[in-house]
Amino acid sequence: MKTMSAHIVVAGGGVAGMEAAGTLAGMGYRVTMIEKDDAPGGHLLQWHALFPDRRPADEVISHFRKHTEHPNLRIITGTTVEKVRNHGSGVLVSLSGGAEEQADAVIVATGFELFDAHRKEEYGYGIYDNVITSADLEAMFNRGLVAKADGSVPSRIGLVHCVGSRDEKVNNNHCSKVCCVTAVKQAIEIRKMLPSCEVFCFYMDMRMYGPYYEELYRESQEYHNVNFIRGKVSEASVNINNRLVIKVEDTLAGRPLKMELDIIVLMVGMEMAGAGMRLAEASGMKRGINRFLESTDHHYGNNLSGLRGVFYAGTCTAPMNITDTISHARAAVTETVKYLNSR
Amino acid sequence: MKTMSAHIVVAGGGVAGMEAAGTLAGMGYRVTMIEKDDAPGGHLLQWHALFPDRRPADEVISHFRKHTEHPNLRIITGTTVEKVRNHGSGVLVSLSGGAEEQADAVIVATGFELFDAHRKEEYGYGIYDNVITSADLEAMFNRGLVAKADGSVPSRIGLVHCVGSRDEKVNNNHCSKVCCVTAVKQAIEIRKMLPSCEVFCFYMDMRMYGPYYEELYRESQEYHNVNFIRGKVSEASVNINNRLVIKVEDTLAGRPLKMELDIIVLMVGMEMAGAGMRLAEASGMKRGINRFLESTDHHYGNNLSGLRGVFYAGTCTAPMNITDTISHARAAVTETVKYLNSR
Repeated sequence: MKTMSAHIVVAGGGVAGMEAAGTLAGMGYRVTMIEKDDAPGGHLLQWHALFPDRRPADEVISHFRKHTEHPNLRIITGTTVEKVRNHGSGVLVSLSGGAEEQADAVIVATGFELFDAHRKEEYGYGIYDNVITSADLEAMFNRGLVAKADGSVPSRIGLVHCVGSRDEKVNNNHCSKVCCVTAVKQAIEIRKMLPSCEVFCFYMDMRMYGPYYEELYRESQEYHNVNFIRGKVSEASVNINNRLVIKVEDTLAGRPLKMELDIIVLMVGMEMAGAGMRLAEASGMKRGINRFLESTDHHYGNNLSGLRGVFYAGTCTAPMNITDTISHARAAVTETVKYLNSR
Repeated sequence: MKTMSAHIVVAGGGVAGMEAAGTLAGMGYRVTMIEKDDAPGGHLLQWHALFPDRRPADEVISHFRKHTEHPNLRIITGTTVEKVRNHGSGVLVSLSGGAEEQADAVIVATGFELFDAHRKEEYGYGIYDNVITSADLEAMFNRGLVAKADGSVPSRIGLVHCVGSRDEKVNNNHCSKVCCVTAVKQAIEIRKMLPSCEVFCFYMDMRMYGPYYEELYRESQEYHNVNFIRGKVSEASVNINNRLVIKVEDTLAGRPLKMELDIIVLMVGMEMAGAGMRLAEASGMKRGINRFLESTDHHYGNNLSGLRGVFYAGTCTAPMNITDTISHARAAVTETVKYLNSR
């Protein structure tokens, strides 16, 4: 395939960045993908299995490795995009370390960060050994062992939804979209790995909106006996037996609950990535009240930054699951190609 | 711009079809869009204002009219795609009426149908005058008058979520994604139009997952005094005063409720369109247990049909809001262009 003369810089090498960069390279464009870590992959590298089909994350990573192996695609790691600005007919891209790239178009795919669970002090993350995050639990799945800090087998695990989401106190009113279905997936995985372990999900609303999410939710109840308790956990502590105790208002039963648990899993939500916020600040890109990048239009301008030649892809614009991130990145490719054709 | 030789048929002229067809035409491809109704527009034509920004639907329709006015784009109305099959290096497309089109690629964008509220007989649609659907309410907004069948002003309106969704009895386990946020948008619109009218939403889970949905939900409570009752409505009837009465189990208060209402609005969900089902059946395209078209892969194969040169766009694959439908259609464009380049 011929190499077109246009050069596109993709800021970020997570799912959205890899999808966009690999696709554009495959179409014949010269692409430079800038990744802040040592290797592309983003959050996918931390994951064990993906919802709703419990596909091993490794398979999807392999797909993206292949997708981004292309002579037209140059990958620069350990580097961030600091600023973009219109320059001549193109976009001047400033990188950390001082280098610059002249691009015809830029796709911003700086992604999200997981909410820092330390900020919800009342849940005891970093204070009590057996309070972990959903990402920590994935690491346990990857090691093939779900255990307490002392190595013993847990008999009761509680998953707390909406940690850092829908929570005015931490300045996050937004729903992170993926935590409910992730909790259900993780609850099933725990029950399969440790059939004698009871699992409790504490939720506000079960947001199982995607294809096959509702089926997964039913499966978790009918076949895996996962317990769902509608209520917001107010605090976690440790009792005299060194067991975790949580307080929760059961809003369906209409009474306060106090429960002993061996492990508490905090389903941490999604926030705009710091690197993306700094890039937006330096480049004059607008952000919404949820701090994610704000496109020019909620409906048909969803990939447009308002800066000429600069497009948005993936979770830098809002929380999304992997499927929607891939679609959003492909949409960014379409908008970029349209723009390049029209110049 | 040059006209490329490739010819793409787009089956369906709703949001997804218009986005895909207009974009491909703009890129220089020859495109034929087949629309079953007299004009493109799809469900958007019925709508008054769109969530979450309450943008007038007319504005978005105007955008799409402009987007699909292109010399490379031929629109055939009053016609459906009956069958697609691989033929030589392309796809042979059979139309209703017997005509055929030879295409290099096909994008299936046959969309969704609203759940037929008559099927939930217990809610009394078609039996009681003042039981209407969310689509009927939009028509009232478009006329600028929300009124009872006898023309009088309602003082209590109830919105019933999940009608035809998450309901095994009507063979729809899936969530339709857009009903919760549509209900909140409609509740606010009623309260603005009729400030003395009380509005009640009966929900199972408030699925306000998208950007600014949660804010809209809060606004509806804090500024518009919309009442939210967690419970599934079991039936509607009419009392001696000719007022509607509903029975609902309030699952938060833990008690059965009986309420008098002037209008009941059934938030009808999304189902796979009949035309799409017939096309899938005739062409050997796979459908999921929710009856929507099943792509080859939940993650990166989201636009792929498994048939060579045939791609999926929009709500023929799953319920989606307009923003996601547009992204999905743009992603289908990317996949189609990739495919055409690789032949």
